[in-house]
Amino acid sequence: MDNTGYTPAEPIAAVATALAPAALGIIRVSGKNSIQLLSKIFSRPKALNEAAGNTIVYGWIVEPNVERLQDQKLAARIDEVLVSVFRAPKSFTGEEMAEISCHGGTAVVTQIFNLLLQNGFRQAERGEFTFRAFINGKADLTKAEAVREIIESRTNASSQKAAGRLAGNLQAQIAAIQKSLIDTLAQIEVEIEYPEDEETIADAYDQTKLLEAIAQLETLASTWKSEKLYQEGARLVLCGKTNAGKSSLFNSLLKEERAIVSDIEGTTRDWIESWISIDGIPARLFDTAGLRSTSDEIEARGVESAKELSGEADLLLYLADISASKDGIDLDFLAERKEPVIFVWNKIDKIGAGQNDSQDQKDAISEAQKFYEAASKKIPALSGQVFVSAKSGGGVKDLVAMAKALLLKGQETERSQAGLGSERQKRLVESALESLRHAASLQKGYSLDAAVQDIEDALDFLGELTGRVTADDILDSVFSNFCVGK
Amino acid sequence: MDNTGYTPAEPIAAVATALAPAALGIIRVSGKNSIQLLSKIFSRPKALNEAAGNTIVYGWIVEPNVERLQDQKLAARIDEVLVSVFRAPKSFTGEEMAEISCHGGTAVVTQIFNLLLQNGFRQAERGEFTFRAFINGKADLTKAEAVREIIESRTNASSQKAAGRLAGNLQAQIAAIQKSLIDTLAQIEVEIEYPEDEETIADAYDQTKLLEAIAQLETLASTWKSEKLYQEGARLVLCGKTNAGKSSLFNSLLKEERAIVSDIEGTTRDWIESWISIDGIPARLFDTAGLRSTSDEIEARGVESAKELSGEADLLLYLADISASKDGIDLDFLAERKEPVIFVWNKIDKIGAGQNDSQDQKDAISEAQKFYEAASKKIPALSGQVFVSAKSGGGVKDLVAMAKALLLKGQETERSQAGLGSERQKRLVESALESLRHAASLQKGYSLDAAVQDIEDALDFLGELTGRVTADDILDSVFSNFCVGK
Repeated sequence: MDNTGYTPAEPIAAVATALAPAALGIIRVSGKNSIQLLSKIFSRPKALNEAAGNTIVYGWIVEPNVERLQDQKLAARIDEVLVSVFRAPKSFTGEEMAEISCHGGTAVVTQIFNLLLQNGFRQAERGEFTFRAFINGKADLTKAEAVREIIESRTNASSQKAAGRLAGNLQAQIAAIQKSLIDTLAQIEVEIEYPEDEETIADAYDQTKLLEAIAQLETLASTWKSEKLYQEGARLVLCGKTNAGKSSLFNSLLKEERAIVSDIEGTTRDWIESWISIDGIPARLFDTAGLRSTSDEIEARGVESAKELSGEADLLLYLADISASKDGIDLDFLAERKEPVIFVWNKIDKIGAGQNDSQDQKDAISEAQKFYEAASKKIPALSGQVFVSAKSGGGVKDLVAMAKALLLKGQETERSQAGLGSERQKRLVESALESLRHAASLQKGYSLDAAVQDIEDALDFLGELTGRVTADDILDSVFSNFCVGK
Repeated sequence: MDNTGYTPAEPIAAVATALAPAALGIIRVSGKNSIQLLSKIFSRPKALNEAAGNTIVYGWIVEPNVERLQDQKLAARIDEVLVSVFRAPKSFTGEEMAEISCHGGTAVVTQIFNLLLQNGFRQAERGEFTFRAFINGKADLTKAEAVREIIESRTNASSQKAAGRLAGNLQAQIAAIQKSLIDTLAQIEVEIEYPEDEETIADAYDQTKLLEAIAQLETLASTWKSEKLYQEGARLVLCGKTNAGKSSLFNSLLKEERAIVSDIEGTTRDWIESWISIDGIPARLFDTAGLRSTSDEIEARGVESAKELSGEADLLLYLADISASKDGIDLDFLAERKEPVIFVWNKIDKIGAGQNDSQDQKDAISEAQKFYEAASKKIPALSGQVFVSAKSGGGVKDLVAMAKALLLKGQETERSQAGLGSERQKRLVESALESLRHAASLQKGYSLDAAVQDIEDALDFLGELTGRVTADDILDSVFSNFCVGK
């Protein structure tokens, strides 16, 4: 992003909805005189210019250059629209704003947008609307980043975690920590100005609040692992021998957890990839399709691609047919794995005529458990076993629950708990922690000034996190990933 | 569309914007108590319920079932939104309506939509919003159909023609014709009641207005050919020998007229297809890629696919290298063509060092013209020749102008002129015309009652066109092609 493009108050315009045929399309404008400029291509300029904030004006977008002869009036009409009017500072950006709700044809949306560009608006940069909200004090950086997260979220859970930050739960927690630190600083200042005992000047302040702040920041920092998972998603690889039922399980997982996008075939056609939701965690599920084939050569290639894929995986699902001989299970392959593996015993329905709790089924499960226990002593990657019927979908919920627990490693944040929303925030929390830990560790004999310096550094880092103190290059990194129109 | 789905006033909801990540998404609701129902999942129910029409209310979409304990408040929040409130009858549908403007993430839009379905709304059928506008007298059928056209338009010209109908130019013209016919009927009634002369009872009315109405309807009917072209687009096929410069011309046309969508490769890979705009007419341009290859077998296949494609084409562009021998020109292929052909002489830049008006160029053009004239005497499909440099883009505008003129066959409607918007409208205009021509043709000796019957039939057809008189199955055919949310 070019900083020179960000001229606050300059009138900007952007198409804010996806450009594909739909019932409605929205084009946003913001900046000084933006409503007056818009009124030049509006059939009822007076009504628009006089409209109060938070009201809606009906009219037509018209070409301004066509002479307004009686019978040319119709010709100049582009589309029948509703314009939502926002007056500064009561708008998303804090500036004068309008949103044109037009019909959602790609041609008509583009035409209206081009008309705006010809009539005094410039195309908005990515994230420029949210950037303006930030510089006009309508949102801090944690809220601004949450806007982008919500737009990019693939699951409800991901979206809702971001909504918490948009509502301000992270901002509130950071503000509370900042207050504790400022209180501590004030107390130290008192000690420096009015020492009770000259001898103890170096360590004569109460560290309670400082230690509390450290604990709170440590909790926050620990949330990033799971928050990142909800934002960016996990990689799951499904593998196992031919006929273990991989494609049934694949379909069963898609059905249970709803595929988010359609299948993507690997360029080598050795695997298939789908986005699924692991109880709210977006996950890319790779099925090593090559392993399905019966040809030895193709099978070998499948194993290779399984190895490659699993090298970058967060979790491996290894599938075995419980009704088949256990000799074929790839213990060597599993022993090489670094990532956690769930051992999935499939085709439980084939035993004991599919009856749960039949003696045959109990025996088979008991035998499988013994096999797993023996294997897991030698293979550290094995992290759990489940029994499923991929065909009927039985046990798939247990598999999903185990996968979720392994991915989160017990670090799920509570729904109402504040979590971090970006790498940037994580880095700043860690920098603040480092300074505070240093302040807390200062031994007797050091000057209190050293602790003051550390705490002030930590406050700077936290200020940068919410955007109270911030450099241009940080703004760039926050806003340049946005959609245009946000 | 199932008619039982159309229960007027029942609360309905639909996602009105394209479901892809974007800055904003819009979900619409309409029907009795829809605002009160929406307020159940809104953070400021009182503000929403008390909001006046055409105003905007800020708040959060919240889950209604989460208990509202202090620290669960954040957890229940789904998204920060603006709700546009419309009070009956001042809304698009004429009913109570609201539009929720939320962040445009696919997960959050879907989640809000599902919350609405769980809280008293049913999913809207295709076109149901516009259907309700129609039954509530907010739009006649010509306007309703124009809404769909605007959404589906691929070019500005197509969209603007529909905008004229949305603004009511077709409705106004039909209304004027209806008035003429009703005047004529009134005059005939007078003749029947108070005949001046018993002998001439059968032909004693002034046919001026009747003949005027026929002329106006004939003009309207003639517009459909070009309006249909703007709506549905034309098929253009590009062919010619290898090295004639087809792919350069293809690219040059895309550049000049802006490709609308990216290339689509034929399943057989013998052709490439792109949407372009022929000065406002959307056109699918097929390039017989196979002809490009030098292999005889592939070339033969290319010629076959050119023949197949051209069988369904509206226009063929046949490309020849002006600097090459004319012996290779496929006169046999051209002689078999039924659709019009533009003969495109390419590589004009290769002659006379590319200098316009050089003697070499003049000679080459003169020779080419002689060849074309001789060929066109034998080949009726040849409809014009142009000289281009596909490489530099020279002459491509002339080619576009000639293509447009041939596609329209001189039937372009003026920008402000009313045109027909659908096959349905065309059929009804033709039925009305038939009845009126019959009325006008009645010879002396027939009863005036026969003319009355004909004119009344014509009025019925025109009433059906604008929807004043209409059967359920006609409504179905109009609204079932709509987007959900319109």
